[in-house]
Amino acid sequence: MQPALDVLVREVGLRDGLQSLPTPLPTSAKLAWIRAEAAAGVREIEVTSFVPAKLLPQFADAEQVVEQSLLVPGLQVVALVPNLRGAQRALALGVPKLDYVVSVSRTHNLKNVRREREASLEDFRGIVQARDAAGRRQTTTLAAGLSTALGCSYEGRIAVDEVRRCAAFLAEAGAQEILVADTVGYGDPGQVREVFRAVLAETAGIPVAAHFHDTRGLGLANVLAALECGIRRFDASLGGLGGCPYAPGASGNIVTEDLVFMLDSMGLRTGIDIERLLAVREQAAQHLGAGQMHGALARAGLPLHYQAARSGGRLH
Amino acid sequence: MQPALDVLVREVGLRDGLQSLPTPLPTSAKLAWIRAEAAAGVREIEVTSFVPAKLLPQFADAEQVVEQSLLVPGLQVVALVPNLRGAQRALALGVPKLDYVVSVSRTHNLKNVRREREASLEDFRGIVQARDAAGRRQTTTLAAGLSTALGCSYEGRIAVDEVRRCAAFLAEAGAQEILVADTVGYGDPGQVREVFRAVLAETAGIPVAAHFHDTRGLGLANVLAALECGIRRFDASLGGLGGCPYAPGASGNIVTEDLVFMLDSMGLRTGIDIERLLAVREQAAQHLGAGQMHGALARAGLPLHYQAARSGGRLH
Repeated sequence: MQPALDVLVREVGLRDGLQSLPTPLPTSAKLAWIRAEAAAGVREIEVTSFVPAKLLPQFADAEQVVEQSLLVPGLQVVALVPNLRGAQRALALGVPKLDYVVSVSRTHNLKNVRREREASLEDFRGIVQARDAAGRRQTTTLAAGLSTALGCSYEGRIAVDEVRRCAAFLAEAGAQEILVADTVGYGDPGQVREVFRAVLAETAGIPVAAHFHDTRGLGLANVLAALECGIRRFDASLGGLGGCPYAPGASGNIVTEDLVFMLDSMGLRTGIDIERLLAVREQAAQHLGAGQMHGALARAGLPLHYQAARSGGRLH
Repeated sequence: MQPALDVLVREVGLRDGLQSLPTPLPTSAKLAWIRAEAAAGVREIEVTSFVPAKLLPQFADAEQVVEQSLLVPGLQVVALVPNLRGAQRALALGVPKLDYVVSVSRTHNLKNVRREREASLEDFRGIVQARDAAGRRQTTTLAAGLSTALGCSYEGRIAVDEVRRCAAFLAEAGAQEILVADTVGYGDPGQVREVFRAVLAETAGIPVAAHFHDTRGLGLANVLAALECGIRRFDASLGGLGGCPYAPGASGNIVTEDLVFMLDSMGLRTGIDIERLLAVREQAAQHLGAGQMHGALARAGLPLHYQAARSGGRLH
């Protein structure tokens, strides 16, 4: 039995982070990262994406990564599935949680998966049916993500009502978690409150998770705003891995270790040992290159009272 | 008559930022920065510190910087004064607002100004008397800052009650603004709420301002927490200038342009034109070196809807 958490921090660096890197990370390095981060207390990791290998060679080893990750004790293994074909590959392996993602921005959805948004929403029903037909209704959780929910590089601001309607559709279609994503880092805390409250009102009883990018520096402020709305599940990427390969230094997802530091400092239990997490970051940086890793905590170090707490004192 | 603001953003890069740089910035470059930032809409700038030039050669030109800054239209000129002697120099020049700072951490205060904290608190009374004796009671505002109020590299956590007591002392002694500073970037949003509520309870009727460092990435989340407590005055540094010269890449104060972006996105009026502010940053970077400047917005650029608003659309 694992201790209770206040907030679930979900690592997405192996998917959202690696996705933007031109060179595939060796499978052994991915698995070392997954095992070390799980050992540090991270309970849920999005380990790969079931996209065609010819589109994203980074995930050509999806099957192998999943099979090995399923052996890691105490870890909830998640895989992104862009379509029914990807879901079928993941279901065949017995992945316990799948993330299916639709863009709220119609333009972004068209450019990303070459389908109309409404068609992509409808596709989720097919994935639910495939899961049920495979007899995995009790054992595979289906999460549905809304990308560009806080803005889009093509369309700018996205109307809250559009997000609300997409969330309502997916909840009705059988989503067991709704993930609201600020894919391009446009969101601000005021907007976060508005969007998450609207989504929560449509999804009673279904957990809502947040996926923020720190592109314009507001990532952790947005987490705080979402926490205040009652959100308790957050995606993050070790060392903020990801971002745009064409904007050097631009961070991608919010930084896992900075997020854990904030939550931990606020007295919210994440189950994660932050010093061990920082060690995992150093280990991952050896494979990825230090220039790929961002984040403030790793540079500045833990505050003095953390060290005191380690030597027998109390943190809170 | 200047338009009303919701939040006052105060630039401290010329003092807190430059303070940590080994090479003095030429006076002409300081003045160009001050003039450009005021023209972009920044209404209050801490332009210098009246410390002995032999301690901090960066501020050997304090008199000249102040005299020229006083000529900038619409600008509230502020100077840091570490002691009575500094206050007397500033009063002689007619500086309209002085910041006097005491460390809540007794150890930090001793190391910083070689005085007991209680003696430093008591010194503020002397500065109030000097201001009044100079006949400047109506024309010079005295602000009092509490540094290390959210933690100290020597002492770790600082008890909220210590902050509360120091704030109460300074308010009683005549402070017209209390500035609560997270000097080493230890604070988290939960602690911010606790500390600012305690200080606000002791300082009825006196404005309370916040000075956050982004050392561990929580700077803007801390701003959000302070906003929720009713704080409407924030220090920030253009390009996050400052930080520790021994920790490359470690940011110092929160980044002015990222702060303005957050406030602006939330619909809070700062009076600052963010595109002009980004231009000032580029100009300052030419003198300071781009490696000194941090911040996410300058790297990532403004969101699409800002550009749309510029071309005639509406932002909110």
